[in-house]
Amino acid sequence: MTEMMQLLSRDELERRLYAIGERQYHDLHPFHTLLHGGKLARGQVQAWALNRFYYQVSIPRKDLTIMSRMEDPALRRAWLQRVLDHDGLGTDGQVDESKVGGIERWLRLTDGLGLDRDYVISLEGILPATRYAVDAYVNFCAQHSILEAIASSLTELFAPSIHRERIAGFEENYDFANDATLSYFRKRLDEAPRDVRFGLQYVLDNAVTPAQQRQVQAALRFKTELLWAQLDALHHAYVSPGLIPPGAFVPEGTTATEYRR
Amino acid sequence: MTEMMQLLSRDELERRLYAIGERQYHDLHPFHTLLHGGKLARGQVQAWALNRFYYQVSIPRKDLTIMSRMEDPALRRAWLQRVLDHDGLGTDGQVDESKVGGIERWLRLTDGLGLDRDYVISLEGILPATRYAVDAYVNFCAQHSILEAIASSLTELFAPSIHRERIAGFEENYDFANDATLSYFRKRLDEAPRDVRFGLQYVLDNAVTPAQQRQVQAALRFKTELLWAQLDALHHAYVSPGLIPPGAFVPEGTTATEYRR
Repeated sequence: MTEMMQLLSRDELERRLYAIGERQYHDLHPFHTLLHGGKLARGQVQAWALNRFYYQVSIPRKDLTIMSRMEDPALRRAWLQRVLDHDGLGTDGQVDESKVGGIERWLRLTDGLGLDRDYVISLEGILPATRYAVDAYVNFCAQHSILEAIASSLTELFAPSIHRERIAGFEENYDFANDATLSYFRKRLDEAPRDVRFGLQYVLDNAVTPAQQRQVQAALRFKTELLWAQLDALHHAYVSPGLIPPGAFVPEGTTATEYRR
Repeated sequence: MTEMMQLLSRDELERRLYAIGERQYHDLHPFHTLLHGGKLARGQVQAWALNRFYYQVSIPRKDLTIMSRMEDPALRRAWLQRVLDHDGLGTDGQVDESKVGGIERWLRLTDGLGLDRDYVISLEGILPATRYAVDAYVNFCAQHSILEAIASSLTELFAPSIHRERIAGFEENYDFANDATLSYFRKRLDEAPRDVRFGLQYVLDNAVTPAQQRQVQAALRFKTELLWAQLDALHHAYVSPGLIPPGAFVPEGTTATEYRR
């Protein structure tokens, strides 16, 4: 029996999913090492937060895309909490602090970094590559099976450790770190483990043929690749070699890259 | 009357479309300067040709996406030649040399560079960012108006000069340059100007409101951005800083980038 046709045990499939994170989750990317180690200037952190905002606002659209294709109301109810976590039940002043969503919390970070809210929300300055990678995620969830879409969410298995590392690194290294700017990451420390327990159980319960087991691993690899590609684009534009594409955000105190004929 | 509401003359719209190319067509990208100037090693040229192959095979899908949405048979007939140019009427030996399509000609280039055809066609080694940018183009043409989809093709206004520059640069600088490996570019010198005359006329004839005139300019900018993003990804992975994402093509004689925890 070839490897391709072999049905893995539940434990072995779980082990292989974790191994994907070990090998290629974006905590390994040099940009994160610089970010968490306090090696980036304010403008570079701004570029990261600005671009990542497009990912944040797209997550509920991604989850609603998945939900719109789920036939089981119980499954939809289980998935809905993710949308509420990001959209919140209201914004500052309208609801208790604990009910403010992830998108609003991310805007506290961009506020704290000195970025204009309207500019952030307009998405005008993001790198085109950020848009393509994030849109690829939404499209993947529209075009693949529910099982694969859920498997692609399992990068949350690896998220708590990167959030903890980020909180510690920001507090130690940057003057913009405070309760407001870190509130997104602290909240996710509670939410992500709950979400991923559900997602992992679903995947292990439902990937019951060799083909499905290959598909869920491919879906998780796909997701790690698109997180990685977002950091590649930031690194190229704002760190090394530092070539900002025409039209993208130019941090204060730097000049737009000149491309000459 | 604000700029937003102003109807441009036909000449002024044409001038603005050309200005987009002047400002941000990918002939200005440092990767092309290196490529055409003979500054790249064989492995770097291989990476370019391998990744660009995904763009080449996606162009007919993009054009068929547009055609599938055209209601006028005359317009579909006019657009069909593009598909035939890339798909050809057959492959080597089946038809006259002049009827061999662009995809097959691109494979002559990857052959000449020493890449295995099956590997190239499998798309296994391409950068995820290449896939996202190219897919964004196909999706754009599925989701926007026919007018915008046609406007996005107008980068062909700027293509003949880059093809001429490429042919001259390759012949002068690289030992892989010969009639077979350059055949794609030579053929496009005839085809692109014919295609773009039609596309430009269509856009100038049909962008007749201020909103449509803004849309066609945005569509052309969108297209220049996705061409640019493909070179950014190649430059980051294979030139500077040279960080190849996990799983992507690693040129012979180089080692895969190691990302450590």
